[in-house]
Amino acid sequence: MIRIGIVGYGNLARGAECAISQNADMELVAVFTRRDPQSVKIATADVPVLSFADVNDWQDKIDVMLLCGGSATDLPEMTPEFVKKFNVIDSFDNHANIPVHFKNVDDAAKEADHIALISSGWDPGLFSVNRLYATAILPKGENYTFWGKGVSQGHSDAVRRIPGVLDCRQYTIPVPEAMERVRSGENPALTTREKHTRYCYVVAADGADKEEIRNAIVTMPNYFADYDTTVEFISAERMAAEHAGLPHGGSVIRSGVTGWNEENKQTIEYKLTLDSNPQFTASVLVACARAVYRMYNRGIRGCQTIFDIAPGDLSASSREEIIAHML
Amino acid sequence: MIRIGIVGYGNLARGAECAISQNADMELVAVFTRRDPQSVKIATADVPVLSFADVNDWQDKIDVMLLCGGSATDLPEMTPEFVKKFNVIDSFDNHANIPVHFKNVDDAAKEADHIALISSGWDPGLFSVNRLYATAILPKGENYTFWGKGVSQGHSDAVRRIPGVLDCRQYTIPVPEAMERVRSGENPALTTREKHTRYCYVVAADGADKEEIRNAIVTMPNYFADYDTTVEFISAERMAAEHAGLPHGGSVIRSGVTGWNEENKQTIEYKLTLDSNPQFTASVLVACARAVYRMYNRGIRGCQTIFDIAPGDLSASSREEIIAHML
Repeated sequence: MIRIGIVGYGNLARGAECAISQNADMELVAVFTRRDPQSVKIATADVPVLSFADVNDWQDKIDVMLLCGGSATDLPEMTPEFVKKFNVIDSFDNHANIPVHFKNVDDAAKEADHIALISSGWDPGLFSVNRLYATAILPKGENYTFWGKGVSQGHSDAVRRIPGVLDCRQYTIPVPEAMERVRSGENPALTTREKHTRYCYVVAADGADKEEIRNAIVTMPNYFADYDTTVEFISAERMAAEHAGLPHGGSVIRSGVTGWNEENKQTIEYKLTLDSNPQFTASVLVACARAVYRMYNRGIRGCQTIFDIAPGDLSASSREEIIAHML
Repeated sequence: MIRIGIVGYGNLARGAECAISQNADMELVAVFTRRDPQSVKIATADVPVLSFADVNDWQDKIDVMLLCGGSATDLPEMTPEFVKKFNVIDSFDNHANIPVHFKNVDDAAKEADHIALISSGWDPGLFSVNRLYATAILPKGENYTFWGKGVSQGHSDAVRRIPGVLDCRQYTIPVPEAMERVRSGENPALTTREKHTRYCYVVAADGADKEEIRNAIVTMPNYFADYDTTVEFISAERMAAEHAGLPHGGSVIRSGVTGWNEENKQTIEYKLTLDSNPQFTASVLVACARAVYRMYNRGIRGCQTIFDIAPGDLSASSREEIIAHML
């Protein structure tokens, strides 16, 4: 059995707890929280909830620790710190800062003789690995990534910070015409506005100026100003009834050409349609825990990414079984 | 530069020759043929075409040999034989016989201290690796593979062997309703007939009995009897004008569930749309040659599959570049 620990107990951690239960070769052995452990009730029976102060006692009892913190402030500190004591996996998703995070984690992991896998999940993660496969196979071509339809938690949070907004759910929606142009092999140059639209369901406080809120949203730099954004005000009841889930998904498409005159179009598309973004992301982390465990046992140390994982190491089945039944 | 040799000079080999030209870190150094080398004219200037008898002279001059023979009779003999002298890659695609082929190649490769990659391409190959990723991530679910729309060369050949048939192009076509049921997360049990239809364009000899040909096709065991097959007779001119290409493609779909009550549907789809099946398959082999070269230099020996290749080894870019720009 691969012994898994979880740090944090938000949506991602709860998804990981459930994903571990779907894998017969793994067991959850402990959850660590910054909150009062007494206040955190987890779904698995007989697994302790502990405080960060207790982690030292668990170094020999956990094979891989899943770090389920946020990328903005938690993981840049947490991953280099925890890798001093454990093999770790995180889902650091701030693309621009990945090289710095990699270096910090790599130094700490090598110093401690551990292995760390950073930026696991679906983007970064499965989408990254599909960009890489497709680019290696079709060197002449273009990559396109479309996200959605799905809830962006960062954008929803940004709207919630506007005065007069009680709640928001922001959906990122790919533009169907743009996707069709890409799939046709046209290799279009697409602006930000041409690729995605944004749709905000907003619960406003009584008496709030809705036009002012709408204007604050659609002109918000970085988040909305470069997009066509629709704002719809709804009741708190409707928000609870219709927008409780966290669906997401998207497509990575590479449109390439082969042939001496580049006469043949070749298109590779990888598409995710997810009812629950955090549960799916957690499922990727949990499959990666198996690979990290095996790589550690083969003597691999330092910071790794999904690019370093041979796919066979993710599978619960033996090498003979996957050759006979999946190849 | 990675020095590549090619064995054979059919459609796949010609695709590989062209794919090598798209990769700046590789060069084609020789083509080996069973035919009279004088009779084979290749597209690349200043690269020799040699007979099988000459291979011994090239052991120190070729890093990876691409074996572009057929799976029925060529590769079962060719791969274990060539791996005695070279690192090799083949596209062995007879799924049921892969374990036996693996064993034969593995024994010969280890004996000769070489590395072999078998069953590369897209199915087996990219489709296999997507079945594996998706199954590891979503342990609760079903895999579905749809092929086409595209030309099946095996089925076209089978029809050509019927008396009175001068030429045939057989298209395998996935049933759209079946694909939609799978994509919706319904997890249907689908019969062979429900998943694909077959469409044959046939050029008949003058005076041939077309009804007899049609009947011979649609009742042919293994190839057509389990499918709804349409036969259309066309002229040799129309065949040449409209069916000269070898398009293909298909989708691997895993439809899984997560959540304590399996309440969330999660769908992963990997889809290929290919103008030229042999050029695309060859492009996969050529990218894999880079990985095989690197794995050999790290001391890896014996028979490998795409499950053993860490994705980063396929990329022409450095580890730092792919972490910064693709993750």
